[in-house]
Amino acid sequence: MQTNPNSATLLIHCKDKKGIVVSVTEFIHKNNGNILYLDQHVDHQEKEFFMRVQWDLEGFAIPTKKIGDYFTTLVGERYAMKFDLYFAQNTPRIAIFVSHLSHCVYDILSRVSSGEWNIEVPLIISNHSKLKHVAQQFNIPYHVFSISKENKTEQEQKILQLLRENAIDSVILARYMQILSPQFIAEFEHQIINIHHSFLPAFPGAKPYHSAYERGVKLIGATSHYVTPELDGGPIIAQGVTEVTHKDTVENMKRKGLDLEKIVLSNAVWSHIQRKTLIYNNKTIVFE
Amino acid sequence: MQTNPNSATLLIHCKDKKGIVVSVTEFIHKNNGNILYLDQHVDHQEKEFFMRVQWDLEGFAIPTKKIGDYFTTLVGERYAMKFDLYFAQNTPRIAIFVSHLSHCVYDILSRVSSGEWNIEVPLIISNHSKLKHVAQQFNIPYHVFSISKENKTEQEQKILQLLRENAIDSVILARYMQILSPQFIAEFEHQIINIHHSFLPAFPGAKPYHSAYERGVKLIGATSHYVTPELDGGPIIAQGVTEVTHKDTVENMKRKGLDLEKIVLSNAVWSHIQRKTLIYNNKTIVFE
Amino acid sequence: MQTNPNSATLLIHCKDKKGIVVSVTEFIHKNNGNILYLDQHVDHQEKEFFMRVQWDLEGFAIPTKKIGDYFTTLVGERYAMKFDLYFAQNTPRIAIFVSHLSHCVYDILSRVSSGEWNIEVPLIISNHSKLKHVAQQFNIPYHVFSISKENKTEQEQKILQLLRENAIDSVILARYMQILSPQFIAEFEHQIINIHHSFLPAFPGAKPYHSAYERGVKLIGATSHYVTPELDGGPIIAQGVTEVTHKDTVENMKRKGLDLEKIVLSNAVWSHIQRKTLIYNNKTIVFE
Amino acid sequence: MQTNPNSATLLIHCKDKKGIVVSVTEFIHKNNGNILYLDQHVDHQEKEFFMRVQWDLEGFAIPTKKIGDYFTTLVGERYAMKFDLYFAQNTPRIAIFVSHLSHCVYDILSRVSSGEWNIEVPLIISNHSKLKHVAQQFNIPYHVFSISKENKTEQEQKILQLLRENAIDSVILARYMQILSPQFIAEFEHQIINIHHSFLPAFPGAKPYHSAYERGVKLIGATSHYVTPELDGGPIIAQGVTEVTHKDTVENMKRKGLDLEKIVLSNAVWSHIQRKTLIYNNKTIVFE
Repeated sequence: MQTNPNSATLLIHCKDKKGIVVSVTEFIHKNNGNILYLDQHVDHQEKEFFMRVQWDLEGFAIPTKKIGDYFTTLVGERYAMKFDLYFAQNTPRIAIFVSHLSHCVYDILSRVSSGEWNIEVPLIISNHSKLKHVAQQFNIPYHVFSISKENKTEQEQKILQLLRENAIDSVILARYMQILSPQFIAEFEHQIINIHHSFLPAFPGAKPYHSAYERGVKLIGATSHYVTPELDGGPIIAQGVTEVTHKDTVENMKRKGLDLEKIVLSNAVWSHIQRKTLIYNNKTIVFE
Repeated sequence: MQTNPNSATLLIHCKDKKGIVVSVTEFIHKNNGNILYLDQHVDHQEKEFFMRVQWDLEGFAIPTKKIGDYFTTLVGERYAMKFDLYFAQNTPRIAIFVSHLSHCVYDILSRVSSGEWNIEVPLIISNHSKLKHVAQQFNIPYHVFSISKENKTEQEQKILQLLRENAIDSVILARYMQILSPQFIAEFEHQIINIHHSFLPAFPGAKPYHSAYERGVKLIGATSHYVTPELDGGPIIAQGVTEVTHKDTVENMKRKGLDLEKIVLSNAVWSHIQRKTLIYNNKTIVFE
Repeated sequence: MQTNPNSATLLIHCKDKKGIVVSVTEFIHKNNGNILYLDQHVDHQEKEFFMRVQWDLEGFAIPTKKIGDYFTTLVGERYAMKFDLYFAQNTPRIAIFVSHLSHCVYDILSRVSSGEWNIEVPLIISNHSKLKHVAQQFNIPYHVFSISKENKTEQEQKILQLLRENAIDSVILARYMQILSPQFIAEFEHQIINIHHSFLPAFPGAKPYHSAYERGVKLIGATSHYVTPELDGGPIIAQGVTEVTHKDTVENMKRKGLDLEKIVLSNAVWSHIQRKTLIYNNKTIVFE
Repeated sequence: MQTNPNSATLLIHCKDKKGIVVSVTEFIHKNNGNILYLDQHVDHQEKEFFMRVQWDLEGFAIPTKKIGDYFTTLVGERYAMKFDLYFAQNTPRIAIFVSHLSHCVYDILSRVSSGEWNIEVPLIISNHSKLKHVAQQFNIPYHVFSISKENKTEQEQKILQLLRENAIDSVILARYMQILSPQFIAEFEHQIINIHHSFLPAFPGAKPYHSAYERGVKLIGATSHYVTPELDGGPIIAQGVTEVTHKDTVENMKRKGLDLEKIVLSNAVWSHIQRKTLIYNNKTIVFE
């Protein structure tokens, strides 16, 4: 992972005013921080300002633990900013949820195993035992929680308990075929990433490849988004498409979709763990 | 246009049976025709067979005018085929319908002017006078038919009359912003090509870029389809997408969409005038 | 794998003449074979004919073992055809060669493990022990053959012996960083697939990402090709590109390239194991 | 054109130091300028800093004519900056050079005609009379300068004289098939944009589609770059590719390439006229 291991990242948004960029960069500059990355965005329609800035903490005058406080006092309050502050030294701890299909979870775990991604995956959760062997291959605990209408609330509570015990930050739904309850989602607001196998908003819900086949589209897609209580309606992080022709059956679309799904999901997760995503008005700003 | 100018093209479909390819190729082979192109497709779900075959008429034993009859008798009836027979010597005659935006009509006319496409454009029709100068630049008659609720039926009849007088085969809706009546569409069934500025079935109807912006998609698209009475619901011929980010305003999406629209429309028209499209079950087989 | 498990596939090429398609389809049709797939290609410049045909063996009149002989006698000799005949029941046996990077081998093994691909991988070969853990995760024997100038010939002989003992059909070089000798390549002619991390013919040889960075290209690519004695000069099977900008360092290009490499390689291998590739004049016909 | 018509744009580069962003944004902020766009880039290998900033001149404290001087004194000299300052009110004046193919020049002129681009095209220059009708369609003077070995220097001098008389800023080589002399290029350094019909550095020079066909690539491309004395070796602005298969003849590649060439060239010109390009070390920074 090419992130400087001793860096801080601020993700900021507030109403747009003159001077915000100056104030933020001055805060870093005056305290002897070297800016590694700066990107900003203004939504002129909403008059909202967004910024991501990352700087080297080597020699930074403010101790790491106090940066949040100082920034709030010296800059944040002046502009009524909402901000998140991340330190590269804190490795994201992520749980992966799966059902029957292994392509996404294999893609993620192979990135972790090779060192391409610097995250920890303390556990894999499924409603089936089917992919237990994948978890075993990578020495990751695999927990099965079968879900029925009757036991859903109870099982979700047990899952949440397990996530808390493992200090999980974020959840990846790697073709997990259960719908999470609003209560569950609320506890990991904007921290649950799903992959849906269509170019949303086309073909939400079940069996999108069947729908794509019926409609005769010439492109099939995949969409990775943050999960909200509205099914397949959350802020989109990444999308991709691939060409299909009249020759492609539903089965063939499913096969072509496998690569699309795993790459689009991984692109979204990469942006998330790099702390490059910021949500506003059910849309996602994805800094480069 | 790379098509052999003395060639015939058959577009065939019927229930799938053993021996169809043999029968068709034998018909051509035995009559001394050299096959230039052959592609077939079987929809195994519908058990329907589709084929496109093109052959050189040089030295072909059956006179051009009788090929249709002979084929019907010797092959077509045996398999209860539906087929269309085209001769490359008959240049397609196409009317272009426009409203306010010129990018698509410019793209088409520049292809005709350069010889990239071998079609004739005997007239351009619009509900506005705005693009008259474009028609004049290319010396093409430009007819304005303003459309209102009250006069729509009457105006469409006048347009149809004009199309008949000009022996028009096909119609291109180059961002023509009027909805054609089912009666109009019926007269040019599967011969009217539209460009819609979204990746259908996402965002049908008006203002798709606004909808794309609101939903926060990371891809915008364009879809070219044959026009049917269902708005934006006809068989899709070609689709394309381009990436957008949080930085793209509606205005910027519109600008990025211009290129997408003109290229996707032209790809669809190219397939159509090459006689490479075949419609079945509201879907389009597009041979290569 | 969607291939009919009881099917045969013919890959044919010969000088183009009238009647070849008829002869081949008649051979299958008259012996009660149902054609599942047929595609043909004529290189009009070289006047060479290429064809791939696949048919259901259920009820086929000629016993599987004799199909090759009968086809030679009844069709092949008449047209001086070269052909390969494959049976879907024979699972391809493939060896994977690796060095330091695991993304491609993980991608391949996860496809095998999930059942997406129906191949057998009896062994993995490397010039390093580094990826032994990957082989162990998938329970595949891992053999290390360190290569030096002095021992290359000898080591290659040992590798070849091992491949023979394991009845290996094809070899995948999954970022294997050794150059194989012409003798080695000759034994697996057109059966060794490599992935090169550039859009060939740009940037052959070592360090293509460095070269891409130096040249300031806006696209980086990957190319999968059959290995021939000319370095990075063999017939291309699949290529892909992804966008880069001035912001992308060499390190970042390498990271972006990982996905490109693994997907392009897997696309090529998929075509190969589906028996959809045919080599002629140092180019690859890849049927759909 | 969505650019604010009363805005200024600074393109800056200098050795990277702490505080540059602060200094530049303070200069604008303190003089009551509202930043519309800010993007920066640091080449960490070369330790070079690049920035593009655009701001609204409405109410800006420094008169337009003096902004350059003030900026030099107050900011530029401190950091030894090289910078270019542009005002949106100054419409770019561009000459188009053509030879036989009209697709690129049509594409450009249709963008100007529709108002998509806000540039002036005072003249078109060619070494042939072939495309005179295109110039006439758009009422643009068309000048023919036939070029031979003997008269090249003399003819180029006449062309340069004409460009000066027309106060031309930039030149677009829209498939102009002559090589410009180093003297000519020097007078319009980094202001001449060419389109080459391959994905450079693959297939520089003549007949790239023939070379692509021979090599059997699965992608063909187009590259737009600033012209330097090294043939097809200048800084790349934009590139694109499209898929080809074994079915594509050289003629077909040429046809597919037409769209690629015109879109890639127009993308490059769009970046150039938006003042989003900055050249360094024979590479192009293209701000978004």
